[in-house]
Amino acid sequence: MELRDLGEFGFIDRITRGMIVRDEPGLVGIGDDCAVFRAGGGFDLLLTTDMLVENVHFQREKIPPRMLGRKAIAVNLSDIAACGGAPKHAVVALAAPPDVNVEYLDSLSAGIRGCAHEYGVNILGGDTTSSPQGLVISVAMTGEVATGRVVLRSGAHADDWVCLTGPVGDSAAGLDLLLHHPELEQTFPDLVTAHRDPRPHVREGRAIGESGMATAMIDVSDGIAGDLGHICRASGLGATVEWSRVPLAPSFREYVAETRGDKRSLALSGGEDYVLLVTVNPAQGDSLTDILYRSCGTRLVRIGTMTAGSEIQLVLPDGSIQSLTSTGWDHFRRTR
Amino acid sequence: MELRDLGEFGFIDRITRGMIVRDEPGLVGIGDDCAVFRAGGGFDLLLTTDMLVENVHFQREKIPPRMLGRKAIAVNLSDIAACGGAPKHAVVALAAPPDVNVEYLDSLSAGIRGCAHEYGVNILGGDTTSSPQGLVISVAMTGEVATGRVVLRSGAHADDWVCLTGPVGDSAAGLDLLLHHPELEQTFPDLVTAHRDPRPHVREGRAIGESGMATAMIDVSDGIAGDLGHICRASGLGATVEWSRVPLAPSFREYVAETRGDKRSLALSGGEDYVLLVTVNPAQGDSLTDILYRSCGTRLVRIGTMTAGSEIQLVLPDGSIQSLTSTGWDHFRRTR
Repeated sequence: MELRDLGEFGFIDRITRGMIVRDEPGLVGIGDDCAVFRAGGGFDLLLTTDMLVENVHFQREKIPPRMLGRKAIAVNLSDIAACGGAPKHAVVALAAPPDVNVEYLDSLSAGIRGCAHEYGVNILGGDTTSSPQGLVISVAMTGEVATGRVVLRSGAHADDWVCLTGPVGDSAAGLDLLLHHPELEQTFPDLVTAHRDPRPHVREGRAIGESGMATAMIDVSDGIAGDLGHICRASGLGATVEWSRVPLAPSFREYVAETRGDKRSLALSGGEDYVLLVTVNPAQGDSLTDILYRSCGTRLVRIGTMTAGSEIQLVLPDGSIQSLTSTGWDHFRRTR
Repeated sequence: MELRDLGEFGFIDRITRGMIVRDEPGLVGIGDDCAVFRAGGGFDLLLTTDMLVENVHFQREKIPPRMLGRKAIAVNLSDIAACGGAPKHAVVALAAPPDVNVEYLDSLSAGIRGCAHEYGVNILGGDTTSSPQGLVISVAMTGEVATGRVVLRSGAHADDWVCLTGPVGDSAAGLDLLLHHPELEQTFPDLVTAHRDPRPHVREGRAIGESGMATAMIDVSDGIAGDLGHICRASGLGATVEWSRVPLAPSFREYVAETRGDKRSLALSGGEDYVLLVTVNPAQGDSLTDILYRSCGTRLVRIGTMTAGSEIQLVLPDGSIQSLTSTGWDHFRRTR
């Protein structure tokens, strides 16, 4: 059987069977943004890892090394944020091909250090090696959350609001611009920044986690369609998303109009937005919105509702309905 | 500047400057086998990462996938052992090229699971992605050690004994056999196993850590010459190693005799033995030897002495002396 027939998530299911050998109170294994284990001292520890591979997650000539270093840290920060945690420590493993020079790696390191510094994360160690071909960066990061306060994908209930902490599609539009419309880079610098230097919603994730109000949370790395699908599968539910409520940035709208791009595809399936997708009981929706605005200045936008069943439906402005099930990013099925 | 001019350890020094942004009691950053941070509940947490890259650390046709999976876990277990810790949880990041099929990955996963199971480690999550070229496996592992009981590289004193928990050279001889004398695989299966499926000295590491007697410890991954060099640099000392005391397995001696190999080079610079190199105060050397034998059935072998200065000297049977300084494995300087 070929890997592309199985797909990334089928493969993850397959390799992760029986991986927990010592069950413990508070232990969360494969299937969420972070692993969780009880550390003592009133805290649960979060552990996550993300690997960036050249020509899969990035093209070396399309992203400056400092931005690449920042992104390697940011994608892990976003996983910690999605569990409601405070990021703490990280280790970095790096495989460098022969055509990468020391100046490139100095800039990459400056990006790693700069992003880690902004979020108060210690880079505590790592592993460096040569690579015959592409550059590979793998980061593992720990975080802390008060015991029992971790927000998982699996806690959503039917009728919960489905909310976002920011607009979607900017990163996908930025990538589209770099690949197909590089002449527009000066016109839409914020889209390029959204792709190269995404802001992980760490403060938002902590505020949401500390509120105790979110029933489920995930970061939008594979696109709303895919990531809401993870919450639906983990919670045994479906969802409805109203397209007219999905927050889109003005420059995203302008870029799509100018390039005649597929707005819905970029916004819903593009991925790498690193905003948070949150579910909350309708009775607490307004309170959570207030808390988030007061603590972070961030608007929580309701885009839909969790439903019984297993389908994700997109409601269009004319009242027609489209299926959004399983259109997220899969690393083994397509090439970015 | 080219990477090969700087070397792996120069590069690590360069990228790791200023990486600790929040200093804390008990915090150990870059420069030891594991990072250490205080978790509460009477424990310090260890965190380590190791990346295996195809055609750098392994050749896919030379190692069965199950063994590769075991090794990816074992090298991290060995880092936890070298700090005197108990391994606990791990996350695995995997980049798989298109020519790897599902059966291969099932075997790889079985190896990961099997080795983790033997040592009581939970695989709590991971990240899988495609890779344009080679297979890359990056594992991050946590471990626990009683607060303040971590054994670092930096605690050795002059006149301490330098000891090993097992023979060296078998893994290097096994690799040499696979690359240059494959016809001898049936004759020396234990050397091939030492290379493909090394046993991390986890029980030994814990017993040594719990004894409180070791002043410094490291696992032998780069060869005695390189790894004793790490202890010397971290402790601000030199060392003397007596060649006649270095433990060599009978099959290693036979293989080297049969192939006219360079015995000293394979034993001292070959690396990947994953035994532990330990320093201990001479007054406690016999006690530690007893403890290790009673708890694990493992003989601690004294091979030399820590000295003032910074050189590592190898004393040959005729009384002549060679320098062993800086002949360890460097990923950016040579190709394995």
